[in-house]
Amino acid sequence: MTNKINLEEPVSEPHQEIKLSLLRSRLLQAQQQLGDKQFPVFIIISGVDAAGKGDLVNRLNEWMDARYMRTIALGEASDEERERPDFWRFWRTFPADGTSAIFIGGWYSEILAQTVADERSRSHYEWQLTRICQLEEMLANDGALIIKCWLHLSREAQKEKLDKLFQNPDTKWRVTARDLMHVPYYDAFIMQAQRVLEDTHSELAPWLIVDGQNLETSSYIVGEHILNRLQQHLAESALSDKEDHSKTIGNKKNKSKNHLAKLDLSLALEKKNYKRQLAKYQEKANILVRHANELKKSSVLVFEGWDAAGKGGAIRRLTHSLDARKYRVIPIAAPTDEEKVHHYLWRFWRHMPRAGQVTIYDRSWYGRVLVERVEGFADEAEWRRAFQEINCFEQQIQEDGNCLIKFWLHIDRDEQLRRFQEREQKLYKQHKITEEDYRNRERWDDYEDAVNEMIEKTHSKQAPWVLVEANDKFYARIKVLKSFCKNMEKMLDKYHD
Amino acid sequence: MTNKINLEEPVSEPHQEIKLSLLRSRLLQAQQQLGDKQFPVFIIISGVDAAGKGDLVNRLNEWMDARYMRTIALGEASDEERERPDFWRFWRTFPADGTSAIFIGGWYSEILAQTVADERSRSHYEWQLTRICQLEEMLANDGALIIKCWLHLSREAQKEKLDKLFQNPDTKWRVTARDLMHVPYYDAFIMQAQRVLEDTHSELAPWLIVDGQNLETSSYIVGEHILNRLQQHLAESALSDKEDHSKTIGNKKNKSKNHLAKLDLSLALEKKNYKRQLAKYQEKANILVRHANELKKSSVLVFEGWDAAGKGGAIRRLTHSLDARKYRVIPIAAPTDEEKVHHYLWRFWRHMPRAGQVTIYDRSWYGRVLVERVEGFADEAEWRRAFQEINCFEQQIQEDGNCLIKFWLHIDRDEQLRRFQEREQKLYKQHKITEEDYRNRERWDDYEDAVNEMIEKTHSKQAPWVLVEANDKFYARIKVLKSFCKNMEKMLDKYHD
Repeated sequence: MTNKINLEEPVSEPHQEIKLSLLRSRLLQAQQQLGDKQFPVFIIISGVDAAGKGDLVNRLNEWMDARYMRTIALGEASDEERERPDFWRFWRTFPADGTSAIFIGGWYSEILAQTVADERSRSHYEWQLTRICQLEEMLANDGALIIKCWLHLSREAQKEKLDKLFQNPDTKWRVTARDLMHVPYYDAFIMQAQRVLEDTHSELAPWLIVDGQNLETSSYIVGEHILNRLQQHLAESALSDKEDHSKTIGNKKNKSKNHLAKLDLSLALEKKNYKRQLAKYQEKANILVRHANELKKSSVLVFEGWDAAGKGGAIRRLTHSLDARKYRVIPIAAPTDEEKVHHYLWRFWRHMPRAGQVTIYDRSWYGRVLVERVEGFADEAEWRRAFQEINCFEQQIQEDGNCLIKFWLHIDRDEQLRRFQEREQKLYKQHKITEEDYRNRERWDDYEDAVNEMIEKTHSKQAPWVLVEANDKFYARIKVLKSFCKNMEKMLDKYHD
Repeated sequence: MTNKINLEEPVSEPHQEIKLSLLRSRLLQAQQQLGDKQFPVFIIISGVDAAGKGDLVNRLNEWMDARYMRTIALGEASDEERERPDFWRFWRTFPADGTSAIFIGGWYSEILAQTVADERSRSHYEWQLTRICQLEEMLANDGALIIKCWLHLSREAQKEKLDKLFQNPDTKWRVTARDLMHVPYYDAFIMQAQRVLEDTHSELAPWLIVDGQNLETSSYIVGEHILNRLQQHLAESALSDKEDHSKTIGNKKNKSKNHLAKLDLSLALEKKNYKRQLAKYQEKANILVRHANELKKSSVLVFEGWDAAGKGGAIRRLTHSLDARKYRVIPIAAPTDEEKVHHYLWRFWRHMPRAGQVTIYDRSWYGRVLVERVEGFADEAEWRRAFQEINCFEQQIQEDGNCLIKFWLHIDRDEQLRRFQEREQKLYKQHKITEEDYRNRERWDDYEDAVNEMIEKTHSKQAPWVLVEANDKFYARIKVLKSFCKNMEKMLDKYHD
C-alpha cells in the first residue's frame, strides 16, 4: 500500500531488498517454530578485532524477535563468578528451550586470548579445549543447536578498516585503545585462532568462517546460515519426535558388581558411644568448615540413598554444629518450569556454593541415572550418556581444590518397611510417607542395579562414593560425619606446609 | 511399637516430650496447608549476641520440613550485590508462595549495627527505617506472613552464657572473637535495638521478644509463636479467598487530567533531518554510556506505550550504537512459574543492572497499573497500592545517583489501525499482530484513563515520564534518543567539578 518512491536510496544490487525481506521473514518464521520445540539455540559470534561483531549482533537483533533471543556478552568475571567453577558464568546465561542466545565471544574469549608458548601453557590449553568440547558435545547431545561464526579480516583489511573508522570524525569513537593495541599482535592471534578453530570444529558444532569486510554481506551470510541450520535442526527434531525412544542401545546387560551386597548392615553403635562420637565429630566438623571458609575452599556434599534411609537425619546431625551462614541444604524435588526448559544439570549448577561455603544436595544430579532411569523419564541413550556428563561436571566442581563428597545411605528392604510403618505412627512424620514410597519399593531390584552401575561409573579417587551402612541410624550418622571430616582434612592438608 | 525404657534421660518436666511432639506435628501440618496457599512466610530471627540465634534456627530446621523452608544468612555483600540497590540481595532470596524462609538478621543487621550519634546518622537511620517499613508493608499487603522474633539476654546473662561456653572445652570453639569484642558495647547496642524494635513494631509485622537464656524454652516459644501466627494467617487467607475481589474501593472516580490529549501528534521529522540527527545522537549516546560505565553508574530505561507505537523500533535505534556488552533488553512477557509465586516486583528486581550497565525494559512493572488493572488481573486494592510501591521501587533504583528514564510512546487510534494493517501485509511483521491486539483496541478509553492516572501518580522530577509523540516514527525515535542523552548528561554532570 505504501508505494513511495525514494530516489535517494537506489538499490545497489538488484533484488537485494527483496532477498533481505525474505530472509527476515523466514528467520522470524523459523524462530516461531522454534518456540514450540524443546531445544535451545546457541549462536556464538567470534572473530578478529574490528570485524564488526557488535554491528553484526545488532543486525541480528533487529531482524529477529528480541523476545525470544538474548545477547550475552560477558566482561570481567564478578566475584560471585570467580568463586565458582569457570563455566558457572556461562551456565547461568544459557537460553531456555525454544529460545536463542547470541554469545559474543562466549567460552572462546579466554582460550583465544592465549598464546601457547611452553609445555605448561600447552597443558592448560588442552584442559580448556577439553572443557569446551565436552560442553558443546553435552549440549548438542541434549538436542541444542550450536551455531558458531567466525568473522575474519586479513591483516591489511583490519588495518584499513580501523584507519577508515578512525579518520572519519563520526566513527572515530568506535575505535578503542584496545583495538589499536592489538594490531601488532595480529599474527600471533591468528595462529592461536587457527588452532582453536580446527580443534573445536566438529560435526555437532561446526564453525562458519565469514569475511568481515562488509557488514551487509557478512550479516546476510550469517543470517542465512542461522536460517539454514535452524530449519535443518527443526526438521530433524520433528523426525526424532516420532522415533521410538524406548529402544535400547544393544541388549548387552553388563551387570555391575553388587557393591551394595558387600556392605555389612549389622554394623551398629550403642547410644552412649554414639553421643560421645557425635559431639566429637560435630566439633571437628565445625572447625574444619571454619578453616575451609578462611581458605576460601568450598564443599559440595551429595546425599543419595533409599527412601527412609535417613538422609535428612544424617544431614541435620552434620549441619547441627555448622554456622548457618556457611552452609545451605538444597532439597531436590520436581523441577520448576524454568528448570524444565534447560539441560538437566542446569538446576544443580545454579546452586553451586561460593568460595568457602558448603552446599548440601539432598538428592542430586544422580536422579538422572536412578529414578529417571528406572522410571523411564530418561531414555537409555540419555542416562547412559549421563555417567560421563556427571563425571565432567564433578571434575569442574573440584576445580581449584574444592571438596566433593558423595554419600549413598544403604538399608535393606526389611528395615525400610519397618521405618515406613514407624513413620505412619509418629504424628509429625506422617507427611513423609506416601503411596508412591510403597510403589517405589516394588522396583527395589531395578534400583539396586542402577545404584551399582552408578557407583561403578562415577566412583573415583577424586570424587569418591562413601557407602554408608545405614540400618543403624547411629552408626550411619557417625560414619557420615567421620567421612566428612576425613575428606575435609585431606583437602585442607594440601594447603599446609 | 517401640516401647523402650530409657533410664538415662528422665523427662525433666511432665508432658514436655508430648508437648514438643504435638508442636512439631502441628507445625508440619500447618506447613503442608501453607503449600497450597498463595503467600510466603518470612521469619526473621534477630537478637543479642550469644542468645542462641543459630541454635534456634537449627532447631526450627529440624522440626519443620526442609524442603519448603530455607535459611538465609547473608554475610558481606558480593560485588554483584554492592553494585545494585541495597535491598536487591534480599529480593533475590525471597521465598516463593507456599514456602518459608528464615532470615538470620535479615534486613535488620545493618540498622542494628549503627549508633545514632549526630544529625547525619539520624537522617541515614530514618532513611533505612523507611525502606524497612515500606518493604514489610508491601510484602504484608501482598499477603505475606511476616514473623519477627528477638532473642534477648540481659547484660549479665550474656556474660554468663559466654563464660560458660568459653570455659567448657567442648564448647569453647563456639565463642568467636567477635562475640567477645562486642561485650563492652552491650548498652549502646541495646539502646539502638530498643529504638529499632519500637520503630518497626507494627500490626502487620509485630516483634516477639523472647528470653534467650534457655534454648529448650526459647525454641518452644518461638515454635509455638510461628505455629499460632501461621494458623491464624491460614484461616484469614481462607476467608479472604471467598471475598469478592471485584468490589471497588468507593466509586469516587477522580478522573486524572488527560496528559495524553495534550500531546501534538502532528509533530514529524523529514527523513533527511532524521538521518542526520539519528547519527548525531547515536554517537552521543554511545559516548555517554561509556562515560557512565567508567563512573560505574547504571541506567534503567522503561518503554511503555500503545501496541504498535514503535517501542521496539525506538529501542533498536537507541541500542544500535551501544556496545552490546553494556546493555541488556528485557522483554516483559507472561511471568514464568518461578515469577508467578513471588511478589509482582520480584521479576523486575532480578534483572536490575550492575554498576555501569544499562537495562532496558520493553514493557515493565507498569503492567500492574495498565493491563492488569484494565483487564482485571489485579483487583482495585492491588493496583491502587501499586502506585506507591512503584514509587518506592524507583527510588531504590536511583540510589547512588543511578539513572531512571521512563518513556510513554503515544499514537492515536487511527495510526494504530493503520500500523496493524501494514504489519499484516509485511511478511516479516505478520507474527507481530494477533487477535488480541484488536481486542485490546476496543478498550482504548479504559487504557487511556489508566495511562493518565499512571502518569499523574508516578511522574516526579527524579523519575520523570517522557511522553513521546509517536505518530511519526522518525520524530519519536529522535525524541527518545535526545531525552536519553539529556537525562544521562544531567546525571553525569553531578560527577563533574
